[in-house]
Amino acid sequence: MSNVISIVEVGARDGLQNESRTLSQEARFEFIKHLAASGLKRIEAGAFVSPQWVPQMIGSRELILEIFSRRSEFPKNVQFSALVPNVRGMNDALTTPIPEIAIFGACTESFSKKNINCSIAESLERFREVIALAKKNKRKVRGYLSVAFGCPYEGKVSEARVIELVQAYLKMGVYEVSIGDTIGVANPKQVSAFLLRLKRRVPIKKVALHMHDTRGTALANVVAGLEKGVRVFDSSFGGLGGCPYAPGGSGNLATDDLVYMVHGMGYKTGVDLEKLLTYTKTMQDRIGRQLPSRTAEAGIPRVRPLAK
Amino acid sequence: MSNVISIVEVGARDGLQNESRTLSQEARFEFIKHLAASGLKRIEAGAFVSPQWVPQMIGSRELILEIFSRRSEFPKNVQFSALVPNVRGMNDALTTPIPEIAIFGACTESFSKKNINCSIAESLERFREVIALAKKNKRKVRGYLSVAFGCPYEGKVSEARVIELVQAYLKMGVYEVSIGDTIGVANPKQVSAFLLRLKRRVPIKKVALHMHDTRGTALANVVAGLEKGVRVFDSSFGGLGGCPYAPGGSGNLATDDLVYMVHGMGYKTGVDLEKLLTYTKTMQDRIGRQLPSRTAEAGIPRVRPLAK
Repeated sequence: MSNVISIVEVGARDGLQNESRTLSQEARFEFIKHLAASGLKRIEAGAFVSPQWVPQMIGSRELILEIFSRRSEFPKNVQFSALVPNVRGMNDALTTPIPEIAIFGACTESFSKKNINCSIAESLERFREVIALAKKNKRKVRGYLSVAFGCPYEGKVSEARVIELVQAYLKMGVYEVSIGDTIGVANPKQVSAFLLRLKRRVPIKKVALHMHDTRGTALANVVAGLEKGVRVFDSSFGGLGGCPYAPGGSGNLATDDLVYMVHGMGYKTGVDLEKLLTYTKTMQDRIGRQLPSRTAEAGIPRVRPLAK
Repeated sequence: MSNVISIVEVGARDGLQNESRTLSQEARFEFIKHLAASGLKRIEAGAFVSPQWVPQMIGSRELILEIFSRRSEFPKNVQFSALVPNVRGMNDALTTPIPEIAIFGACTESFSKKNINCSIAESLERFREVIALAKKNKRKVRGYLSVAFGCPYEGKVSEARVIELVQAYLKMGVYEVSIGDTIGVANPKQVSAFLLRLKRRVPIKKVALHMHDTRGTALANVVAGLEKGVRVFDSSFGGLGGCPYAPGGSGNLATDDLVYMVHGMGYKTGVDLEKLLTYTKTMQDRIGRQLPSRTAEAGIPRVRPLAK
């Protein structure tokens, strides 16, 4: 199995979208430049959503237009994407050169209703139209499946149902499904058992894991994923994003922690962790809180001289 | 392999000893009562050290005398222990009924000099005397081996050297060696490879792991330990203890996070996590800072009704 891990950096979208302060378009551009300069190759840059619903993502269209008008300032091999919830968002996205969009659905009816205001069946219909438009315009489509390992309204989630939805996404034309532990309840045994079952139905290359560190288990779950052949992981700079269900708590797995661990295990990510961490203080000042990343706090281990 | 995990709760010693505020003997007694009432069965209660060096452990002797004079207030099956650095400490410990003591050594010469002010060979001589006294008085001896996975002064640590030291400890009469990732640099691949090698020389039942969550990897390392047959893990209530090398950062693995994960994986610890967490706020008020535990922050996941 490959020793190369692909990180999908979601800090500028999933991360910032769940922070209480809204960053300016300029600050977000600078942040994304830093992420790319640190070696992150897949970057979610914004969302084509209503600023009424998600004020933090205001001006995503302009931000993306700016990225592509200044494309030469970014490494060539960086891939940008943006979240698109519906046809209206897709049409907005098509006014930009964004080459990849992401759709976001749920694994339980309750979470779907609460989060995207429709049933799962309705969401699949909606996505079908979005994907048709994307394909027609040669844009790639990534899919998120949230609450795959536990739901705040329904508790346990059926593995069979999640697998069915992964298959439905792939069949609709999604090239990669990111399976999310949205509320951070999964454990490595559960992740392992689920992936073993999933692998019998779906090529593991089309699967990404989106783990939350709400209860400290994200990296243990990543290792379970690695052991089952997953090589794509979502994470968020510094753990940006918090947990909407536990104010002040930790949500998204921190890219810093992910990179620290997997580099130590011999995997390659292309990320320069030292460089990545130079932005910690700037971001903390901007969002007005301590980032939850452990590695950002402790720093990269360094051998220091023993004082005499 | 057994599905029972034994947790050695080090919050009242290793934890509090690394907090800047010193808790009163009364507060520490109350805390230890709470730990025991929550189902923790192995509790490190104090240290027979000079209050000049470790002011936070002042009055450990009196605290331990109080525990044993009020022994009926604690569940019968709880085992108490205390840290003993030298013969002087051992003699103090012998004025109490403490049935188990712990010695603390290092895996590198630099850390040994810096931390306990002697070479490793000198520390072994010292421990030999301590153990002789303990055995003569029918006290059990546990051993800590610090910086087994990385040293702040020497960087990489020789696996062969660590294994040699584990064997030396066992040979001297230590019944269990707790192998520590003192600065939180280990990764699961490293832990796995090390344990595989160690198991060829030493019964895994005599091995405990003491993981730090400094860079978010503690639980991933615990899983690596579980896979290799380790069933004893040290942890600290709420992650008490911080990291002496990164002020504000995370040090000891939080008992809360450990229990949350391993219960989800089907292991039994005997700990009532809900009860354990009821003390979080009290402890935060006493130490004057947020505890680093993720689970303490987020809480136990609960299924909530979907608002109409």
